[in-house]
Amino acid sequence: MYFHVQKFINDIAEDEPNPAAANALQEGLGGQFGEMRTMMQYLFQAMNFRGPAAKPYRDLIQGIGTEEISHVELIGTTISRLLDGSPQYQGKKSDPIDKPGAGGAIPLNIALSESNIHHYLVGAQGALPVDSAGNPWSGSYVYNSGNLVLDLLYNLMLESTGRLQKCRVYEMTDNKTARSTLAYLIVRDQAHENAYAKALETLGVNWSATLPIPKTNAERFPEVKKLVDMGLQSKQYSFDLAGQSEAGRIFQGASPSNDGTTLDASEQAPEGVPSVIAPERFEEFAPGVDAELLKLIQATAELELAEVENLFGPTAASPSSAAKPSTAAAKK
Amino acid sequence: MYFHVQKFINDIAEDEPNPAAANALQEGLGGQFGEMRTMMQYLFQAMNFRGPAAKPYRDLIQGIGTEEISHVELIGTTISRLLDGSPQYQGKKSDPIDKPGAGGAIPLNIALSESNIHHYLVGAQGALPVDSAGNPWSGSYVYNSGNLVLDLLYNLMLESTGRLQKCRVYEMTDNKTARSTLAYLIVRDQAHENAYAKALETLGVNWSATLPIPKTNAERFPEVKKLVDMGLQSKQYSFDLAGQSEAGRIFQGASPSNDGTTLDASEQAPEGVPSVIAPERFEEFAPGVDAELLKLIQATAELELAEVENLFGPTAASPSSAAKPSTAAAKK
Amino acid sequence: MYFHVQKFINDIAEDEPNPAAANALQEGLGGQFGEMRTMMQYLFQAMNFRGPAAKPYRDLIQGIGTEEISHVELIGTTISRLLDGSPQYQGKKSDPIDKPGAGGAIPLNIALSESNIHHYLVGAQGALPVDSAGNPWSGSYVYNSGNLVLDLLYNLMLESTGRLQKCRVYEMTDNKTARSTLAYLIVRDQAHENAYAKALETLGVNWSATLPIPKTNAERFPEVKKLVDMGLQSKQYSFDLAGQSEAGRIFQGASPSNDGTTLDASEQAPEGVPSVIAPERFEEFAPGVDAELLKLIQATAELELAEVENLFGPTAASPSSAAKPSTAAAKK
Amino acid sequence: MYFHVQKFINDIAEDEPNPAAANALQEGLGGQFGEMRTMMQYLFQAMNFRGPAAKPYRDLIQGIGTEEISHVELIGTTISRLLDGSPQYQGKKSDPIDKPGAGGAIPLNIALSESNIHHYLVGAQGALPVDSAGNPWSGSYVYNSGNLVLDLLYNLMLESTGRLQKCRVYEMTDNKTARSTLAYLIVRDQAHENAYAKALETLGVNWSATLPIPKTNAERFPEVKKLVDMGLQSKQYSFDLAGQSEAGRIFQGASPSNDGTTLDASEQAPEGVPSVIAPERFEEFAPGVDAELLKLIQATAELELAEVENLFGPTAASPSSAAKPSTAAAKK
Amino acid sequence: MYFHVQKFINDIAEDEPNPAAANALQEGLGGQFGEMRTMMQYLFQAMNFRGPAAKPYRDLIQGIGTEEISHVELIGTTISRLLDGSPQYQGKKSDPIDKPGAGGAIPLNIALSESNIHHYLVGAQGALPVDSAGNPWSGSYVYNSGNLVLDLLYNLMLESTGRLQKCRVYEMTDNKTARSTLAYLIVRDQAHENAYAKALETLGVNWSATLPIPKTNAERFPEVKKLVDMGLQSKQYSFDLAGQSEAGRIFQGASPSNDGTTLDASEQAPEGVPSVIAPERFEEFAPGVDAELLKLIQATAELELAEVENLFGPTAASPSSAAKPSTAAAKK
Amino acid sequence: MYFHVQKFINDIAEDEPNPAAANALQEGLGGQFGEMRTMMQYLFQAMNFRGPAAKPYRDLIQGIGTEEISHVELIGTTISRLLDGSPQYQGKKSDPIDKPGAGGAIPLNIALSESNIHHYLVGAQGALPVDSAGNPWSGSYVYNSGNLVLDLLYNLMLESTGRLQKCRVYEMTDNKTARSTLAYLIVRDQAHENAYAKALETLGVNWSATLPIPKTNAERFPEVKKLVDMGLQSKQYSFDLAGQSEAGRIFQGASPSNDGTTLDASEQAPEGVPSVIAPERFEEFAPGVDAELLKLIQATAELELAEVENLFGPTAASPSSAAKPSTAAAKK
Repeated sequence: MYFHVQKFINDIAEDEPNPAAANALQEGLGGQFGEMRTMMQYLFQAMNFRGPAAKPYRDLIQGIGTEEISHVELIGTTISRLLDGSPQYQGKKSDPIDKPGAGGAIPLNIALSESNIHHYLVGAQGALPVDSAGNPWSGSYVYNSGNLVLDLLYNLMLESTGRLQKCRVYEMTDNKTARSTLAYLIVRDQAHENAYAKALETLGVNWSATLPIPKTNAERFPEVKKLVDMGLQSKQYSFDLAGQSEAGRIFQGASPSNDGTTLDASEQAPEGVPSVIAPERFEEFAPGVDAELLKLIQATAELELAEVENLFGPTAASPSSAAKPSTAAAKK
Repeated sequence: MYFHVQKFINDIAEDEPNPAAANALQEGLGGQFGEMRTMMQYLFQAMNFRGPAAKPYRDLIQGIGTEEISHVELIGTTISRLLDGSPQYQGKKSDPIDKPGAGGAIPLNIALSESNIHHYLVGAQGALPVDSAGNPWSGSYVYNSGNLVLDLLYNLMLESTGRLQKCRVYEMTDNKTARSTLAYLIVRDQAHENAYAKALETLGVNWSATLPIPKTNAERFPEVKKLVDMGLQSKQYSFDLAGQSEAGRIFQGASPSNDGTTLDASEQAPEGVPSVIAPERFEEFAPGVDAELLKLIQATAELELAEVENLFGPTAASPSSAAKPSTAAAKK
Repeated sequence: MYFHVQKFINDIAEDEPNPAAANALQEGLGGQFGEMRTMMQYLFQAMNFRGPAAKPYRDLIQGIGTEEISHVELIGTTISRLLDGSPQYQGKKSDPIDKPGAGGAIPLNIALSESNIHHYLVGAQGALPVDSAGNPWSGSYVYNSGNLVLDLLYNLMLESTGRLQKCRVYEMTDNKTARSTLAYLIVRDQAHENAYAKALETLGVNWSATLPIPKTNAERFPEVKKLVDMGLQSKQYSFDLAGQSEAGRIFQGASPSNDGTTLDASEQAPEGVPSVIAPERFEEFAPGVDAELLKLIQATAELELAEVENLFGPTAASPSSAAKPSTAAAKK
Repeated sequence: MYFHVQKFINDIAEDEPNPAAANALQEGLGGQFGEMRTMMQYLFQAMNFRGPAAKPYRDLIQGIGTEEISHVELIGTTISRLLDGSPQYQGKKSDPIDKPGAGGAIPLNIALSESNIHHYLVGAQGALPVDSAGNPWSGSYVYNSGNLVLDLLYNLMLESTGRLQKCRVYEMTDNKTARSTLAYLIVRDQAHENAYAKALETLGVNWSATLPIPKTNAERFPEVKKLVDMGLQSKQYSFDLAGQSEAGRIFQGASPSNDGTTLDASEQAPEGVPSVIAPERFEEFAPGVDAELLKLIQATAELELAEVENLFGPTAASPSSAAKPSTAAAKK
Repeated sequence: MYFHVQKFINDIAEDEPNPAAANALQEGLGGQFGEMRTMMQYLFQAMNFRGPAAKPYRDLIQGIGTEEISHVELIGTTISRLLDGSPQYQGKKSDPIDKPGAGGAIPLNIALSESNIHHYLVGAQGALPVDSAGNPWSGSYVYNSGNLVLDLLYNLMLESTGRLQKCRVYEMTDNKTARSTLAYLIVRDQAHENAYAKALETLGVNWSATLPIPKTNAERFPEVKKLVDMGLQSKQYSFDLAGQSEAGRIFQGASPSNDGTTLDASEQAPEGVPSVIAPERFEEFAPGVDAELLKLIQATAELELAEVENLFGPTAASPSSAAKPSTAAAKK
Repeated sequence: MYFHVQKFINDIAEDEPNPAAANALQEGLGGQFGEMRTMMQYLFQAMNFRGPAAKPYRDLIQGIGTEEISHVELIGTTISRLLDGSPQYQGKKSDPIDKPGAGGAIPLNIALSESNIHHYLVGAQGALPVDSAGNPWSGSYVYNSGNLVLDLLYNLMLESTGRLQKCRVYEMTDNKTARSTLAYLIVRDQAHENAYAKALETLGVNWSATLPIPKTNAERFPEVKKLVDMGLQSKQYSFDLAGQSEAGRIFQGASPSNDGTTLDASEQAPEGVPSVIAPERFEEFAPGVDAELLKLIQATAELELAEVENLFGPTAASPSSAAKPSTAAAKK
C-alpha cells in the first residue's frame, strides 16, 4: 500500500522557460531508460518476487521502486516548469494570456518550431508520458525475468544507462531548472547503481574498477559535485512507513563505486520541499474555468470549509492551521 | 513524495490456480482501462494541474491516483497467485518442481494451451504489464488535456469503463482468488465514479438517474454486495501522510449514484493486510538460486543482522521485534 | 462528400454463432490487408492524387475506396453476428441473458477459451478494429507514394493478398454466415484486382496468364462460383451520386483475368439489403438500459414523432410511411 | 452502403503554402482525437449498435460518422494544399519543378528543416495518416463499449477534445487555408458536442453551464464567429439518402450549449463545393508520368470517350455535358 | 560485406509437425530476447563501434552477430518444419493437399484452434517475424549505448535471458525437431555468455560463481548434455573470411562458467548441413504455381542451363557438377 | 550459414558532418522501405520458400537478401559518419572532446535543434534502427505470403519504392558522404527491380515501357550516372560461397528497364573497400574507457598477441602479417 505527502523529493531551481530542454528531459521521464520505466520495472519485480529467503533483495527493489515514483513526480514537474509560459516568454516568465486567440492572435505560434508540438497541442504546457523523440512509453520496456541474478544485472545496466543519458542531457543545456533535477537524478542513479552492484557483490561478483558506469568525473559537472560531496550517491532511503524493510542488510559496507564512501541505508526518506500548483494558462483553455465555473469552485473550496474541517481537522488552506503529521497508516 | 508499507490494500482469497482467469485479470492491470492506466493518468493530471484555486480537485485526483498504485499492487499479486503453481496443479496448489526438465521432462507443457504463453516463458508465473490480449501497456493511453471539465469527464468515463470490464470478467470465472479482487475493485471503481461525478456536480452537472455506469444490481454479484453493504463505494481515502488533502471538500454530501448513502472522505487509508513473498519456482529458474548462491544470500540476511539493527532498530525479520510505526516522513 | 443509406451492400446468410470464425474474419476487417486498410489507402490516394490529366485513375481509386467503406460495414456486421449470443448458444441463437451474473453465475465463461477475449471483455460481442491475432489496425499500413505506377502496382498486390487471405479463411470454416461474406469479398477483390490490372494495362503492362492471383478454381468454392457465374468479378460500381466518375474509361474491355468476360462499369451501385439493429445483450451491459432509461428512450422515440415528421416528413419508423428517395445531394 | 459526390463539404481558402501549419493540422486528421478517429469510432458504434428501441441514437451516431468521412476528406485536402509547392515557394505558389534534381540540385532541401520529413520523403507533399508528432493512427483509439451511456459520454468528451485541440492549433497559425478548415471543424465539433450532450439529456443528464467545452468566446476567433452567426453549431445533417434516419428525434429543442439557438436536423447535407485535382510534382516523381505514359493516359481518357458515354451518358469531362443527378441508389 | 553458403549451421531433427511448439519457438526468433534481436543489436554495435584500440571487442561482437544471422535461419526453418503439413497431419507428415477447399472443404480448420492463426492465414505454414504472443519484432529492442562496458553488460544479460527462455521452452515440448534446435541454441547462447563475460573479465570484473545464468545442470537436459560434452559452449567461431578477426585475443583462457573448459576461438565456422527447399502447400496457394506457370518455371530452370553454365561454370543443379569452393571473396 | 569480411560493399566519400542528412538517410536504413526491411523480407522469403522446382527464384531472393545485409552495414556506417563529430564541427571534422561537460559546458547543445535528438542522447552519434521520423523498425513490415507471384510483385514494388525514396533524399542534400551511398543504393535498387521484374517476365508478364520505377533520367543525377555508365544496374552478385546459386538462370538476357543492357549474374561479389573503426567520442562517454580500462584493453590486445597468433596465424593487427584468404567455409 502506498501513501503520498505533498512534497517534492528535491528542490527545482528557478530559471527561464526552455521548451527544448523540457523535451530533452522527456527521455528521463518517458524514455526507455527513464523514471517511468524504472518505477514500473521495480514495482513488477517486487510484486512477482520469489523466495522468502531473499527478502532483503525484494525490499531493496521495492524501496528503490517507491523512490522512482517520486522521481516521476520530480522530473514531470520540472518539464512542466520548463514549458510553462514559454509561448509568451520575453525575458521573464510571463503571466497567463487572458484572451486566447483574441482577434485572431497566434499566442501558441512557438509550438510550430520548438520542442514537441504535443506539449502545446495535446498537453497544456505540461509533461507527457513519451520520450524525447515522441514515442509513447511502452509496457514492453519492463524486464522481470524472475531470475534474481538476471534481474539485478538488468537493473544495474538500467540505472547506468539512465545515468549515462542524463549526463548527455546535462551536456545539452545549462538551464538551471533542468540542471537542478538532472544533477539530482545523476547522483541518485549512481546510488541505485551502487545498490544493485552491491547486491551482486553479495552473490559473488567483484566489480573491480568498472564502476560507476559511465565513468565520469563529478568535478566536471559542478551541480553534480555539490551533491556528491554530500554523499548522496551512497545513501538509500527505505520509504518504508513501518520499518519492515531489510534492504539495509545489502546496502552497507564499502561502495562498489570505489569512491571511499560507505553505503548508508539508515534514513527513511529525504526531507523534501513543499509542492505548489501551477497557474492558469488561458491560451491552453487550462483549466478552462470561466467566471461562472470559478464561482462554483470557490463555493466548493470556501463555503464548506468549516464542515470539512469537522471531518479532517484544520487543513493547510486554513489560515490558522499547519500540516500536521498523521500516523494512522503506520499504526495499523 | 511517496511512501510504502508492506501491506496489500485488501485481502486476496485462497483458491486453486487458474491461468485463464489470470489472463482475464490482465485487462484490469495492463489494459487500456486498467489500473496502470488510472494510476498514470491521475499522476500526470496531478503533476500538470493548473489553478491554485482548484486545489481540492487536484487533491481528489492525487489521492485517487495514489490509491491506484496500491490497486496495481493488488491485482498484479492476484494474477501471480492465479498463475503460481498452475503447471503442476493437481487438485492442490503444488510445490515447486525442484528438478526443472530433469531427464527431458516437460513441466511447463501447460504454457502451450493455457493463458498467455508469456506468463511462463517471459515472466516466471507472474503478472505482466500487458492486457488480456497480450498488448503491452502504452503511454498513449494517458489522457491529460489540462482542461478541468474534460479531465473530470474523461476520468468518470474511465472509471465506469474499468468497472464495466471488471463486471464482465466477474461473469467469466467463479474462482475465489479472482473474484475477491474483482469485487473489491468493482466497488472502488464505483467510489471513484462517485468522486468524479460529484466533482462535476460542483461545477453544475446534474446526473439524475444515469449513475452508476454500468447500471448493475449488487444483489446479483454476491461478493460485491458484501462490500456495498459496508458502504465501500461511498468512501474515499486521502492516502495523505500530512493531512493536507482538501479532497473532502468535494467528496461529501449525497452520493451521485443515488443509493441513499453519504460520501465520506474522513479516513486516511484502509487497514490493509500483511504482504507475503511467493515461493521459488525451480522450473522457471526463479529466483534461480543454487546451493552456493543460497549460502551467500543467507549470509547477507543473517550474519549481518546485528549490524543492520544498529542502524535500523529491530526489524520484522528479527524474532524479538515487531513492525513499529515510523513517523519520520510526516514530521519533516 | 459522402452519403449513407441504411442497407448492407450484400446479404449475410443465417447460421449458428461461431466466435472462432468471427476471429478469423477480423483479418479481413482490421488486418494489414483487410477492408479498413483498402478503404483508408484509397481515400488517401484519392485525396492526395496529382495530375488532372489522369482523372479516370483517380475516379477508379475513389470509387473502389467508397465501396470499401461498405465492405467495412459488411464484414464488421458479419463478425458481430457470428459473436452475438455465442456465450449461451445451445443449438439455436440464444436470447439475451436478462440477469447478468445473477447469483454469481458465469455466463461469459466462453470468453476464456474461444476467439479473442476482447470480443467479450472490451467489446460487447461485436467487431473490433484489430486483426485475427489481436493487433490494432495501424496507419503505417497505408501506402500512398504519389507515384501512379507504384500506387497501382501496390493496389493490385493489396487486393490479391486480401483475396488470398480470404480464400484461406474460407478453408478454415464452413459456417454459412462467414462464408456468405467471404465469398462475396473474394469475388469483389477479384473485381478490384481486375480494375488495377486493367489500369496498368492502359500504361503498357501485359499480364499474360499471371492473373488472377491467387490462381484458384471457382468450382472448388461453391459459394464463390455462384457469384462468379453472375459476373460479379467483372463489374465495378461508381458509387458516385452525380455521374461525374470517369472510371469507366479504364474499367472496360476484356478482363485481365482472362476469363472471357468483359469489364462493365455501367452500374452506380448494387441493390443492397436492408440493415437491422442487433438485440440487447444484458450480460454485456449493452446497451445497458434499465427500466428508467428505457422509459426516457421511448419518450424520445415516440412522443416527439409528430414534431420530427414536421421537419423530416414521415420516417421509416412511422407505420404509415416508407423510405422515400432523397435526391437533394445530387441536385446541388 | 456509402456513396460519394465529387464535392468538398466546405470551401478551403487560398493562401500560401505552410508546411508547419500542415503538420499541426495532422493532429486533426490522424491524431488520437482527430477525424479518422471520430469516423472509425462512430462507424464501429453504428455497426455494433444494440437495441432496436434506441434506433434514434444509432442513427445520430451513424449520421455524424458519415459526416466525419467528409471531414477526413476536407482536412486531408487542406493539409495537401498547405504542402503543395512548399519546397520552391518564393512569394507565390510555385509551379512544379520539371527537372527534379537536375545537375545535382536539391529542390527538396526544405524537408530537412520543416514540418514532418515524411511529407516529402514518404508522401509526395500530401497528407499522411499520422498525428502532428508523427505517430501512425492506431485502431486502439476506437472506443466502443456497447454501453449506450458510456459510448455517448465518450463521444461527448471526444468531440470536445477535438474542438479544444483545433482551438489550440488556431492559436498557432494565421494561415487562411489552415484557418478556413479549422474554423469550420471547430463549429462542427460543437454541433457534435451538442448532439451527444442532447442525447444524454434525453437520458436525464442536465449540463447546466458546463457546455460547450472548452468555454470559448467565438468573438475572439473571427473565422469561427462568422460560422456561429450562421448557426452551424446547431445543425446536424443526416447524410441519409433514403430519409430513414431518426436522429432528428434527439437533435431538436434548445441547444445544450445554452446559446439560445434551437437544434435543427432538417437538412440532408450542406451544399458543398466542387473538388479539384492537384497538379503534378515532378520533384516528387508524382504521379511520375513521362511522355510515353502520358500518351497512354491521354489515349485512355480521350479516345474511348464516346464508347464510355454510351454506357454512362455524357460525363463532366465532356465539354457538352454537366454533372446530372443520379438517383438510382435511393430508388432501390 | 556478407556472404552465404547453402547450409544450415546445425542439423534439424525429424519429428511430427507441432504448431504449438512452432509458436513457442517464435519467441526465440522474433521475441524481445530472440535471434533477430541479437543479430540486429550486434550488427548495430559493430557498425557504430568506437575506439580502434578496442578492435578485439568489435570483432568479438561482429563475429557473434554474424553467427546470429545463421541462427535466425536455423530457428526460422525449424518453425517452418514444425508447421509444414500440420493441417492434414494424421500420424505422418502429410502430402500437400492438391485441391484446396475443393467442394467447400475446410483443410485449414486447425488454424482456428492451434498456434498463431497468422501461421496459416498471413504466412503459408512458415515462420513469422513475431514473438510467441504475436507481437511484431521492434527496432526499439536494439540496445547500443556506445559505452563499451554497458554494451557488454547488456549483451551478457541478453544472451542469458535468451538462454533462460529457451530452457523454459525446452520444458514445454519434447518434440525432437523443436528440441534439436533448442538444445543447440541453449549451448550457443552459453558460448556467447562466456564471450561477453570474458570480455568484461578483461576489463576487471570477476564473476565468481554467478555464471552461467541461469544455473542449470546439463544432465537434466539430455539433448543439451550431448553438445556440452562436445565443448560447444566454449567455442566461438569467427565467420570471418579473411582471417582479420582479433576476437581470439579475448575469447581464450579459462571459461567464466567455471566448468573447467578452456575457451577456443580457433575455428572459422562449424561444418553445417545442406539446406533443402520445402514442398508446395496447395491449400495455402503457396507457391501457387498452376500448370501454365510451372511450364514457364521449368523452362527457366532447364532450357537455359547451358547458357547459365557458360557464365557460372557448372552448378549444383547440373547432374554432372558438384558445388565447388569459390574463394573469390577472400582473395580480393 | 553466413560469413563476413571486414570490407564495406562500396566506398563512402569524405565530407563534412551533416546530422540533418544523417536523419534523412535513416529512412533508407530503418524505414518501411529501407534496407533492414528488404534484408529481413528476403531472408524470411528464402527460409520459408516452397517448391524445389522453383529453386532459381529462391536463390535470386536469397542472393539479394544477402546483399541487403551489406547495404544495412553501408548505410548505417554512412549515417554514423555524417553524425560523427557534428556537435563540435567548425569547418573541419573535429577531434573528440576530451572533457565532456567540463566546468558545466554544453558540448552536445546541437542535439536540441538538429536531426533526431536520439542520435546524441540514446546512441552515441551513431545510426539507429528507426526511420527518418523516429519510428522504430517493425516486424509487421515483412511481407511473405508464400505465393510466388505475389511475393515477386511485392518485392518489385518494394525495391521501386526504396529507389523512389532515395531519389527524393538525393534532392534534399548535396553532402558528398550522403550522396555516395545514396547514388550507389539507387543503382543497386534498380538492379533489384530488374531482378524481380525479370523473374515476373519468366512467368509471363511483359513490362513494356513502365520500368524502371520511378522513371528518372540518370543524367540529372551526376553521382548516379557514373555508376549507371558502369552498368551496375544490370549486375547481380550471388554472394554465394560455394557456387550453388541458380539465380543466373533468371537474371540474364535483356534488361526489363529497356536501357539496352544485358543482365549479368556472373560475379560473386563486388571488390569492397576496407572498413575502419570510428574514433572515441568522450562527450558521449563512448566507448567510455578511462586510463585504467584502457590499460586493460591494451593488455588484452597486445600482450597476448603471440598466443593468439598461435591459434589464428598472424592477424591484420600484427605488423608483419596481411589478411590472408581463408577458404575453410567453402571447402566443407
